[in-house]
Amino acid sequence: GSVLVLNSGSSSLKYQLVNPVGGEAIAAGTVERIGEPAGIVTHTFAGNRTRRELEVPDHGEALRLALGMFDEIGPRLADAGIYAVGHRVVHGGAEFSGPVVVDDGVVDRIEALVPLAPLHNPANVQGIRVARELLGDVPHVAVFDTAFFAALPAEAYTYAIDRKVAAEHDVRRYGFHGTSHQYVAGKVARVLGRRVQDLHTIVLHLGNGASASAVRGGVPIDTSMGLTPLEGLVMGTRSGDVDPAVVFHLARNAGMSIDELDTLLNKRSGMLGLSGVNDFRELRRLIDDGDEQAALAFDVYIHRLKKYVGAYAALLGRVDVVAFTAGVGENDTAVRAAVCEGLEGMGIAVDPERNAGPDAAQGERIISPDWTSTLVMVIPTMEELAIARQCVEAVDGGRPSSAVTAG
Amino acid sequence: GSVLVLNSGSSSLKYQLVNPVGGEAIAAGTVERIGEPAGIVTHTFAGNRTRRELEVPDHGEALRLALGMFDEIGPRLADAGIYAVGHRVVHGGAEFSGPVVVDDGVVDRIEALVPLAPLHNPANVQGIRVARELLGDVPHVAVFDTAFFAALPAEAYTYAIDRKVAAEHDVRRYGFHGTSHQYVAGKVARVLGRRVQDLHTIVLHLGNGASASAVRGGVPIDTSMGLTPLEGLVMGTRSGDVDPAVVFHLARNAGMSIDELDTLLNKRSGMLGLSGVNDFRELRRLIDDGDEQAALAFDVYIHRLKKYVGAYAALLGRVDVVAFTAGVGENDTAVRAAVCEGLEGMGIAVDPERNAGPDAAQGERIISPDWTSTLVMVIPTMEELAIARQCVEAVDGGRPSSAVTAG
Ligand SMILES: Nc1ncnc2c1ncn2[C@@H]1O[C@H](COP(=O)(O)OP(=O)(O)O)[C@@H](O)[C@H]1O
Ligand SMILES: Nc1ncnc2c1ncn2[C@@H]1O[C@H](COP(=O)(O)OP(=O)(O)O)[C@@H](O)[C@H]1O
Repeated sequence: GSVLVLNSGSSSLKYQLVNPVGGEAIAAGTVERIGEPAGIVTHTFAGNRTRRELEVPDHGEALRLALGMFDEIGPRLADAGIYAVGHRVVHGGAEFSGPVVVDDGVVDRIEALVPLAPLHNPANVQGIRVARELLGDVPHVAVFDTAFFAALPAEAYTYAIDRKVAAEHDVRRYGFHGTSHQYVAGKVARVLGRRVQDLHTIVLHLGNGASASAVRGGVPIDTSMGLTPLEGLVMGTRSGDVDPAVVFHLARNAGMSIDELDTLLNKRSGMLGLSGVNDFRELRRLIDDGDEQAALAFDVYIHRLKKYVGAYAALLGRVDVVAFTAGVGENDTAVRAAVCEGLEGMGIAVDPERNAGPDAAQGERIISPDWTSTLVMVIPTMEELAIARQCVEAVDGGRPSSAVTAG
Repeated sequence: GSVLVLNSGSSSLKYQLVNPVGGEAIAAGTVERIGEPAGIVTHTFAGNRTRRELEVPDHGEALRLALGMFDEIGPRLADAGIYAVGHRVVHGGAEFSGPVVVDDGVVDRIEALVPLAPLHNPANVQGIRVARELLGDVPHVAVFDTAFFAALPAEAYTYAIDRKVAAEHDVRRYGFHGTSHQYVAGKVARVLGRRVQDLHTIVLHLGNGASASAVRGGVPIDTSMGLTPLEGLVMGTRSGDVDPAVVFHLARNAGMSIDELDTLLNKRSGMLGLSGVNDFRELRRLIDDGDEQAALAFDVYIHRLKKYVGAYAALLGRVDVVAFTAGVGENDTAVRAAVCEGLEGMGIAVDPERNAGPDAAQGERIISPDWTSTLVMVIPTMEELAIARQCVEAVDGGRPSSAVTAG
C-alpha cells in the first residue's frame, strides 16, 4: 500500500502519494492561494504536470480538488491502495514524542496546542478534519515537526526565565523540522554502514526555514529552533536569533504592536530583510553583480551557521559528521564551502572538487577531503517519505517492519 | 595624580579613587538607595570601612556625600591631586569607539542615546552633570561599556532583520562590558609575555551580568550581549538568549505588557528565575542540599556557556586562551571545571588541582594542564583601573604614556 502525505498550510495544501517501501513519490501536487479569488492547483503524475487556476474557497474544497486530480489524471487511489493518510503537524507540544494514529481526542489535543503555534496548528487541524471526512475508511496519522526533539535534555530545552511563568505558559524549546533532522541523522548512518547509536552528527537543515541540530547516538541534544520556528539560524524571511530586547526597543521607539513585530521578525527579516531576496539563487546573482547588501546578508548567514557548528561541536565533544540538507544545503556549493572555511582546526573541511563536482545533484555524498576527522556530507532530505514511514510505524502499532527502517 | 572613577546607576553611585600607574584603589565607596527613605553610604580608606544610613534624595546629594567622606575620613582630594574624573557610561551607541573628554556636546550626545539604554544612560548623564558641577576644575572623561565592541565586523553586529527598520532605529549588536573584555584580553598577553596582536582569546566575563567575547589579535570579532545587555549568556537575573517569540507568546497568552516583559526577562529571569537565587555561593549551597531546580539552573548556565565557547572557537579558528573573569569567573571553581569538561577534543581542559589549588585567590593564573593547545586562565578584571587608565589616555590626547600601558 501507499501513504498519502498531507501538509496543510494557512492558504495551501501540499500532498504526495508515497510508496513507503521503495521510497518513491508516486504522485504529488499543491493547492495554493486557498481563500483567494484565483487559486492554483498542480498535480504531477508519471512525469506529467497538470496546472489549473480556479477559486478554492477552503481546505475542504482543496482536498476535494486534489482527490479529483487523482481520479482524473491518476493514479486512481482505489488502485493505489491507500494504507494510511499522514498529516504533517507543526506543533506537538511536550506531549507528542512520536507519530500517533488520529482519533477525535488527538484532534482536540492538537487544537489545544494552537496557542503555541497560532500560525500553523489551526491549518493542520483543519486539514485533518476535512481529510477524515473525505477519506474516512483509512487510518490517519499525525506526524509532528517537534516530536524528534521531545527527547532533548532539560538543560537544552529550558529557557533561563522565571520557572513559574514558563510552566504556566508552556514556554520551552520545542524544536522543529524534527522529521528531517531524524531522517538525515539516520540516513547518514545507513550511507556510512554505521550504527546511528555510534555517531555524533550535526544536521544543518537549510531551506526557506532553517535549523541546526546536534544528534548524539540518534538522540538530539540541542537544536536551534525554540518555542517557535523563529529562533536560531538566519532564514529566508525570519531573523533567527536576536536580542529579545529588540522587540521592546521597537515597540517603544517605532510604536509597533506585538502583531507587527511578529510579522517583522517572521516575514520581513532574514535574507529578505537584509538583501531584498530570500532565494539563494537570486542572492548569488546579486552578489555576482556586486550588490553589497547581498554580500553582507550572505556573510551574516554564514557567521551564524559557523557559530552553531562550533556550539554543537562543543556539546558533542566529538563530531563524526556534519550533514547539509534541504534546498540551500543540498544545492548551494558556496554556502557549504563558506560554513566550513576556517574550521580545519576542528577537523572540519570541504574538498572543493567533491563539493562542486559533477555529482552535485546526485544525492547523498561525502564532500570532505580524506584527511579530516569529521565527514562533511550532503544528504537530500525526504520529509514526505519519512512521514510516510512513520505512518506505517504508527499504524503497525510501533513495530517498524524491516521495509520501513531500510533504505 | 589619581583618577576618581564614578559609576552612576539608577539608584546608586559607586566611586573609586585609583592610582592609574601603580593600579591600586586608594579609596572606594558606594551610595545606595538614592531616592529612598533610608540610603546607605559606605567609604573604605586605608583598610577602614565607614558606614552611614541617611536619606539621599538625588544623585547631586549622593556625590556631595561621597566628597564629604573624602574630606572627613580621607584621603583629602586636594592632597590626592585628582588628574581626571572618569565616568562609566553604559551605552555609547555606534559613535563612541573610545574614551572621550566630556564637554556639553558630549553630554548631549550621551543623552541622545537614551532610547538605546533607557535603564542606564539617564543615570549616567545625571552623574556626569552633577560631577561637573561639583568638580569643575578637572577634566571629565566618559568611558563607554560599548566602545571596545565598536570594532566588531559587520557580519557580527548586523541582526538579520529588515535593514530599513534597523537603520532607522539603530538596531544592531553593540556589546557591553567592553572595558573588562579589553582589559582582560590585554592582560592575558602581558601575563604570557606575548603580543596581544598574536593571540586568539575567548573572554568569559561572568559576574552578575555576564558576557562572552571572541578577540582576535586584540580586536573583538563577536560578543554575546547585543542591542542591550539582555542577550547572550544566562545571568544572575537576565535570561540571555531566548526565542524572541517568547515575548509574543507571553504578550498574547499571559496578557503581559512590554514593560512587564522587559522586567520579566531582565530582572526575574536567569539564575534567579530558575533557582530562586542569583548568587553562585547560595546556588552551590542549594545544589549541595539536593535542590533539583538549582542543579538544573547550573546545568542550563553551563550548557549556554559551552555553546558560546564552541561558537567562538569556530569563529576564531584557533583558540590560544580561554580567560575567566569577574565574580563567578574568578571564584567559582565548579563553573570553570564544568564549562571546560568534554572540550578536550577542542584542546580545552582544566587541571583540577590548578583550578582548585591553594592559589585560588591569587590573581591571574593558568589552570589548564600542560598538554593542551589552549591555555585556560583566570584573570581578575579591574574595570575601575582600566577606566582610570583610559581617562589618562583621553586627557593626554590619545598618547598612552608608558605608565599607562604597563602592569
Ligand atoms: N540550486 C539552488 N541553489 C541555491 N539555493 C537553492 C537552489 N535550489 C533551491 N535553493 C534554495 O532552497 C530554498 C528552498 O528550500 P526548501 O528546503 O525547499 O525550503 P522549505 O521546505 O523550507 O520551503 C529556496 O528558497 C532557495 O533559497
Ligand atoms: N567566592 C565566590 N564563589 C562563587 N561565586 C562568587 C563568589 N564571589 C562572588 N561570586 C559571584 O559573583 C557575582 C558578582 O560578580 P561581579 O563581577 O561582582 O558582578 P557585577 O559587577 O556584574 O555586579 C555574585 O553574584 C556571585 O554570584
